[in-house]
Amino acid sequence: MSVAEETPGGEDMPWGEVTPEAARRLLVAAVEAFAERGYHATTTRDIAGRAGMSPAALYIHYKTKEELLHRISRIGHDKALEILRAAADGEGTAAERLADAVRSFVRWHAERHTTARVVQYELDALGPEHRAEIVELRRESDAVVRGIINEGVAAGEFDVPDVHGTTVAVLSLCIDVSRWFTTQGRRTPDEVGALYADLVLRMVGAQK
Amino acid sequence: MSVAEETPGGEDMPWGEVTPEAARRLLVAAVEAFAERGYHATTTRDIAGRAGMSPAALYIHYKTKEELLHRISRIGHDKALEILRAAADGEGTAAERLADAVRSFVRWHAERHTTARVVQYELDALGPEHRAEIVELRRESDAVVRGIINEGVAAGEFDVPDVHGTTVAVLSLCIDVSRWFTTQGRRTPDEVGALYADLVLRMVGAQK
Repeated sequence: MSVAEETPGGEDMPWGEVTPEAARRLLVAAVEAFAERGYHATTTRDIAGRAGMSPAALYIHYKTKEELLHRISRIGHDKALEILRAAADGEGTAAERLADAVRSFVRWHAERHTTARVVQYELDALGPEHRAEIVELRRESDAVVRGIINEGVAAGEFDVPDVHGTTVAVLSLCIDVSRWFTTQGRRTPDEVGALYADLVLRMVGAQK
Repeated sequence: MSVAEETPGGEDMPWGEVTPEAARRLLVAAVEAFAERGYHATTTRDIAGRAGMSPAALYIHYKTKEELLHRISRIGHDKALEILRAAADGEGTAAERLADAVRSFVRWHAERHTTARVVQYELDALGPEHRAEIVELRRESDAVVRGIINEGVAAGEFDVPDVHGTTVAVLSLCIDVSRWFTTQGRRTPDEVGALYADLVLRMVGAQK
């Protein structure tokens, strides 16, 4: 599994919002370990080792393995919601904003596919309170996309018999990009985003 | 995570194709354990214990944990290909056959969501030879769906600018059902299948 996405030096430093630097390195190491072996097969000792630190040094920043997963999941879900809100609040018709939301959301799931897999597939490993917090963020993301679709229907731009189910399908289509996308594939994140924006406009029956 | 799908007594006995009975029980136990904790966090001892057997009894049927994963993955992928081929080879227009393929494929991923998650998310844990064998089965499934779409385009039923990318998206949409579907949700597997068949016909620009 490629972890090239996590290497500093790209457009922006991964997890740059996490400080101090030791805490950031531990988070990057945790994402890699969880993606490779799964949450339950990973120990805090593994994570500390990958980050070139001692288990005691890890403990200064994170009390438990679950705290690391929660930080990863929280930052990932905040980012997802931010991406969707920026598109929803932008200029343009409902079709333009829905296409923008899908393009940006797909691009994130492709470019950050290792992180996205951990964020999307390890929800069951969160403790009850953290899980409830993340489920609420997911509800908000759903509501943002449903809002754009409802606006398109109200404006007569879209033809959608089942807004709730179509919203689930649109988000699901984007999220699954993190499962199959590889940097060795034939398409760039931008190309997948453009294709998917077109497919989603078809799903909502957007007028051409 | 619900494992109700694996309980005998439904329409057909899960993994009924696996004999003898001890081998079948071990496979059911392995699916549950892999789905709950991930492949790498599961030991053959865990699996034997869940099946009410000794590690030595497991070893009679499966030499390694990877052999269990391979059996699960192989049976799951054979079933997926069988479902898609049955739809592709059926009667009717390309639109009718594509809708049938999506309905059946979605129903399987919803009804057998625990199994499907293991089948879809643990590919990287297979050994190189087994992985190559499964990747080939996945290529065949892709080709079956691509074939229906190409027939629809040739017949003037569909309007698809990017057949390869649209095929990936159609399968991806169906597969991700296994991630979000729960038996506590508001829709039955049949209802999700019907909605998704409609959405996919829109994606390929099927003439109404």
